[in-house]
Amino acid sequence: MKTYRDYDDLPKIELPYGKEVSISDSTLRDGAQMPGIVMRSKHKVQIYEYLHMIGIEKLETFVYNERDRKAIKLMQDKGYEFPEITGWARANPADIDMVLNVDGIEETGILMSVSDPHIYDKMKLPTREAAQEKYLNALQYAVDHGLRTRAHIEDMTRADNYDFVFPLVEKILEIDPDCTIRICDTIGYGIPFMNVDEPYGIPTIVKYLKNELGAKNIETHCHDDFGLAVANSLAGYWHGANWSNVTYLGIGERAGNAEMEKLLVFLKRRIKGFEKYDLSCLVEFAKFMEKEIGIRIPRNKSVVGQNVFAHESGIHTAGVIKNPFTYEPYPPEIVGGQRNFLIGDSSGIEVLKFKVQETLKEMMDVHIEVDKNDKRLRNIQADIQRLFNEDERVSCISDEEIRAYVKKYFMFNPIVDQELHRREDDESPDNTI
Amino acid sequence: MKTYRDYDDLPKIELPYGKEVSISDSTLRDGAQMPGIVMRSKHKVQIYEYLHMIGIEKLETFVYNERDRKAIKLMQDKGYEFPEITGWARANPADIDMVLNVDGIEETGILMSVSDPHIYDKMKLPTREAAQEKYLNALQYAVDHGLRTRAHIEDMTRADNYDFVFPLVEKILEIDPDCTIRICDTIGYGIPFMNVDEPYGIPTIVKYLKNELGAKNIETHCHDDFGLAVANSLAGYWHGANWSNVTYLGIGERAGNAEMEKLLVFLKRRIKGFEKYDLSCLVEFAKFMEKEIGIRIPRNKSVVGQNVFAHESGIHTAGVIKNPFTYEPYPPEIVGGQRNFLIGDSSGIEVLKFKVQETLKEMMDVHIEVDKNDKRLRNIQADIQRLFNEDERVSCISDEEIRAYVKKYFMFNPIVDQELHRREDDESPDNTI
Repeated sequence: MKTYRDYDDLPKIELPYGKEVSISDSTLRDGAQMPGIVMRSKHKVQIYEYLHMIGIEKLETFVYNERDRKAIKLMQDKGYEFPEITGWARANPADIDMVLNVDGIEETGILMSVSDPHIYDKMKLPTREAAQEKYLNALQYAVDHGLRTRAHIEDMTRADNYDFVFPLVEKILEIDPDCTIRICDTIGYGIPFMNVDEPYGIPTIVKYLKNELGAKNIETHCHDDFGLAVANSLAGYWHGANWSNVTYLGIGERAGNAEMEKLLVFLKRRIKGFEKYDLSCLVEFAKFMEKEIGIRIPRNKSVVGQNVFAHESGIHTAGVIKNPFTYEPYPPEIVGGQRNFLIGDSSGIEVLKFKVQETLKEMMDVHIEVDKNDKRLRNIQADIQRLFNEDERVSCISDEEIRAYVKKYFMFNPIVDQELHRREDDESPDNTI
Repeated sequence: MKTYRDYDDLPKIELPYGKEVSISDSTLRDGAQMPGIVMRSKHKVQIYEYLHMIGIEKLETFVYNERDRKAIKLMQDKGYEFPEITGWARANPADIDMVLNVDGIEETGILMSVSDPHIYDKMKLPTREAAQEKYLNALQYAVDHGLRTRAHIEDMTRADNYDFVFPLVEKILEIDPDCTIRICDTIGYGIPFMNVDEPYGIPTIVKYLKNELGAKNIETHCHDDFGLAVANSLAGYWHGANWSNVTYLGIGERAGNAEMEKLLVFLKRRIKGFEKYDLSCLVEFAKFMEKEIGIRIPRNKSVVGQNVFAHESGIHTAGVIKNPFTYEPYPPEIVGGQRNFLIGDSSGIEVLKFKVQETLKEMMDVHIEVDKNDKRLRNIQADIQRLFNEDERVSCISDEEIRAYVKKYFMFNPIVDQELHRREDDESPDNTI
């Protein structure tokens, strides 16, 4: 018999290939490319600061214009050991020279688009062989000039992997056996399950790269067009990838990338012995992104949305008041969040009782245990239900309103006619879930 | 050799247990419970209308108060065959009586919380056996009164499945062999991968229910606390579940539920022969939810965010202009969306050329092919880059601004000094990705 009554009881998971996995950031590259937003240098430096606080190992950035280079300089001036700042280049010597021209950058990604629409339509190259030659030449150039390398295998989940991409990767590893092979799930076509046909299965791809081609460093970079970016990133780790390249809040091109904050809580809370990241700034980081960069965060955004530790409905609040473990994924303080009880149309008597007690404590500095059937409490509930029943009220009851109700029923009118609201009571109280 | 140059070339996937899978909606139940929002009856009816347009088979709703019942009546008055309206009840005869009292409802869900914190802390029951007795009595009562049933196995991914839950399900199926067994991944602890230890693995749970217990109807209901709700819902289908219970935009308690719109595009676009849903109202449905219910939709929300078919960066726009397949997951019209090119700090010359041509066409009603190296085009680009380089501009260039630039360089000043802006050109044009 197994009993899980608290977080510590829950069994932790072991990743099949071990917990030595890392996260690289693309908030400052793919994220900054997000249509409709513009990141200033001061924003980039602040994001760098947050990534450092979390403990993210690596980030990538463009080096094309003065703004890019200014931001790099400002980040380097912090003097932090991590995240390591790495470059990004298209597969030509001119781009790689631009990376080489920035002091302190020792690694670069190189874009290698492998699907046919990218080779023939976008790049207007005559053959796959021409693409391969271009990529290998650029890689050789980077290696010859002392850079560590990452091969960004773009649109790999819509490419001819067995006849073109895997042979290309073999040649890449001949030039640089330490090259990080980045599986770019560029349009989000990857699928996290085993035994999925070519070219979609992330497990199949990772296993081939690791076991057949001997790649030592494998990274996923997953887009969320079909909602599977996080699962695909985890599937990468599950089957032998040691890196995931992600962005904060999943910002990026189109539907964006896998969300860093989701991976972080998964690793930290679910994987056995995984301790290395500090998540206590995640909520603050999200607020910064919302306020300064203008990224909208829905209330129900995992990890950082304002609802993640908010409870309103009858059953949920009743559970959380008794034991937060009943309806919370982890304690709010892990991510710098706060528990919050709201009174809305789906609230029951338990949360109202809790709120009224809190309010009394606040107003009189004394703890008063209010009985669930206290008529004053039931009167407040009836008043609130009437608001919602009239179908006009569309927001939760604010703390100020609760204070007003407490004053009305508990302070100025303690001996209210206890039968007055009986009829309204029948409708909903305990039955509202 | 395999060549994928367009959507039709891409191989479709076959679900291992076939494509006879369905979607049930909880937008009006778990969604309406979302802290901070209040759905009025008129909203519920409009949501019902959208679900009908899509072709969703079933929905569930509360029947507790007048507002609930009024909304049900309004939906029934539409006279649609689907979505079927089903009820929701806690495991007691009083709740089930409330469902029975609503004309036209023939199926109900029954809440059966199975994790120990829910049994002991939330419900204050003395033993698991007491919980089991309560659940089976309620089920028997529902069956005796002619209802079809669903067992909502709450918090199953943190419960003692082998020693308590599976034996309970066995008894449920003895009472009602057609009962839909809903795997409630209540706190989002489910994991979509195979061979994951008890109690987290959705594939393991589904396979056990199907193969060992002979459940005919298996449904997932997955929360997104760890970002895996969509993957877990798909994992359900993959291993033999025939239903997923989801909400639109994933609204719901805390981080919400699996997003209906993500499942829909996955099924429709990726599964072989899967045709039954009409997705053309998805973007409109999302706008309704944003405007009327107040759900914030980030630009990068999959399927319905305003960025899903928006392109700004140099490489992406260059690709999409040549062949949209390069950087789009499916044609925008599938979900009622629109392609959109934006000029921002990461834009290159291709998209600017495209925008200028479009503007000229709009202003003069004639198609003009502008050369990529046309100095007037380069001047506009230099002007725009200067705006961003000064690090003060934080939004995209609007269509009005493009019109002003076109007027300035193409209309009033056609023989501009072609050398004037040479120096600025060097910085970024083709190098901006």
